[in-house]
Amino acid sequence: MITIAVDAMGGDAGLTVTVPGAVAFLKQQPNAHLLMTGDELLLQQALKTAQAPMDRISIVHASQVVEMDEAPQLALKNKKDSSMRVAINQVKEGNAQAAVSAGNTGALMATARFVLKTIPGIERPAIAKFIPSGNPGHMTLMLDLGANVDCNADQLTQFAVIGSELVQAMHPEKGRPRVGLLNVGTEDIKGTETVKQTFKLLKSSKLNFIGNVEGNDVFNDEVDVVVTDGFVGNIMLKTIEGAIKFMSSAIKQEFSRNIFNKMAAVTALPALKGMKAKLDPRKFNGAIFLGLRGVVIKSHGGTDEVGFMYALEEAYHEARFASLAKIEQGVADQLAALEEVREQEALASGVSHISTP
Amino acid sequence: MITIAVDAMGGDAGLTVTVPGAVAFLKQQPNAHLLMTGDELLLQQALKTAQAPMDRISIVHASQVVEMDEAPQLALKNKKDSSMRVAINQVKEGNAQAAVSAGNTGALMATARFVLKTIPGIERPAIAKFIPSGNPGHMTLMLDLGANVDCNADQLTQFAVIGSELVQAMHPEKGRPRVGLLNVGTEDIKGTETVKQTFKLLKSSKLNFIGNVEGNDVFNDEVDVVVTDGFVGNIMLKTIEGAIKFMSSAIKQEFSRNIFNKMAAVTALPALKGMKAKLDPRKFNGAIFLGLRGVVIKSHGGTDEVGFMYALEEAYHEARFASLAKIEQGVADQLAALEEVREQEALASGVSHISTP
Repeated sequence: MITIAVDAMGGDAGLTVTVPGAVAFLKQQPNAHLLMTGDELLLQQALKTAQAPMDRISIVHASQVVEMDEAPQLALKNKKDSSMRVAINQVKEGNAQAAVSAGNTGALMATARFVLKTIPGIERPAIAKFIPSGNPGHMTLMLDLGANVDCNADQLTQFAVIGSELVQAMHPEKGRPRVGLLNVGTEDIKGTETVKQTFKLLKSSKLNFIGNVEGNDVFNDEVDVVVTDGFVGNIMLKTIEGAIKFMSSAIKQEFSRNIFNKMAAVTALPALKGMKAKLDPRKFNGAIFLGLRGVVIKSHGGTDEVGFMYALEEAYHEARFASLAKIEQGVADQLAALEEVREQEALASGVSHISTP
Repeated sequence: MITIAVDAMGGDAGLTVTVPGAVAFLKQQPNAHLLMTGDELLLQQALKTAQAPMDRISIVHASQVVEMDEAPQLALKNKKDSSMRVAINQVKEGNAQAAVSAGNTGALMATARFVLKTIPGIERPAIAKFIPSGNPGHMTLMLDLGANVDCNADQLTQFAVIGSELVQAMHPEKGRPRVGLLNVGTEDIKGTETVKQTFKLLKSSKLNFIGNVEGNDVFNDEVDVVVTDGFVGNIMLKTIEGAIKFMSSAIKQEFSRNIFNKMAAVTALPALKGMKAKLDPRKFNGAIFLGLRGVVIKSHGGTDEVGFMYALEEAYHEARFASLAKIEQGVADQLAALEEVREQEALASGVSHISTP
């Protein structure tokens, strides 16, 4: 059985989304149990209205709620009994294998980092997401999507390591994940200074590093993990959302341009609906806070119950397949190998200094 | 009459694309004349085969060709009689109002910068492109798309100024262009250190600065100029290309998923074709090298004759509407206003130092 802690009060709509989302999720996953955190009375009422299966849901009372626009540091300091924090505490205490919240992203990151700490060797957690590629059987993990706007080469390399370990843990059948560094060209010498340094580090690592990849490669099935900083990653994610919306509205315009196209739209309705379902952003809801000692999933704050259900699904699959112990061991091995290369290089450069007097 | 210098030997396919592209363009624009640069004999032959209107085309012989993978600095040094350089020389000497090349991007930028120089006050040229937005009557100018991977706040501000002046010159009827700074959120305090500094500079400028914009805003008709560095801009452009390709293949998959959808596709063919035509990447071919003392347009190296024709169209419209003198005056006024703010700030901080002993 997998138990997931759910911040029931988080998100723009709180209980009216989280409770029906939780009920829909439990119907999908018969082996899941939920710990829902928030105001006990309100939760009981909402769960009753939604005819929730109470044998598979436990309520954990939390007296506070973190506001959507609250400063992360203030939430951390003043909201120690928030539904968000209590949900993360459940993971820390071993009562749940994952926590899900649709609340304030900054506060969730700060709280998760404070309560759970990062995996040894990982300085900062990143936000990651699986992006569908052209091949229906393949997804690309992209990180960081906005947790860290300024990153150095060491941090980017750590993102590559943790991303690779997650994909490896979730899809061991696929072999060693192919890691790509997001850049403006595929040649080794391209990019900013930080990206060039990262390239060197990744090249000397034991990761399956395939070199630089470009913006369009995220949609190819030739790369499994795409690494970039949170500034570029966030802009890229929003660009993808914008481009898909733009295309969808272009399709709509085209199918209502004249009477013939309008008639065609009626015949094409199943295909158009299939298309819409395939690209439904709610299906891709659920961003992974990666690099923490526990699974934390951030749902979009403005999503509906279907979207929230998908965030719970993401948490469920990660909790089920991505064993923390295994990931921590993998990260430790990768970072140790990198450290060894560095020491050898330092030694070699020392030797060469001596041998060229 | 508008005269455009065409690097006839540039691009992956050289004359076999540039000559038919030129002929197609001349059919569209009866007031255009072309100076085609390259090997005289080969050009004469190709133009004859294409039944080109020779009264509207002049050949300017050039004995060399810049290779697609040649190092820019080597091309600059060793290829002084290349078709690319001779084309740019035509602009410099006043024989043409614009130059178009499908050749090596780096070499074209280095040559254009060396021959034409930048507009006073603009340190580095940028690569810019008009991106279609959701509103068919609106395009967003995005820059930089890859000329400068590392930019400081002054340079980003200069990109904003030159981008705004170009849009103003080409669309004076639309009023002052709305300038947005690409960022990871719309709040003033977001972003990297460089972006935060740029925000302050733009805020103190006389531009119509609307603040931070996000990746998806490029597709909205609420911003006219989106400023970012060449690293983010290039990744974003490639991401858009990738997302559109991904969507197109998703449409194709959906319409061939079963016999009903396949039948629907036949009825929907005009709409699907309309859609394809609307998003045809060849229509958006032609990137603007902005900030130079002359119009230089870069065509995609792998485009076909239709794509090359659109690059010529872009050059034609820019040469026709964007007067260099006017843009230079606009840039000078904007930069002077910024300088004034800086001096006042320096003075104010000096005064405050004195008044608080």
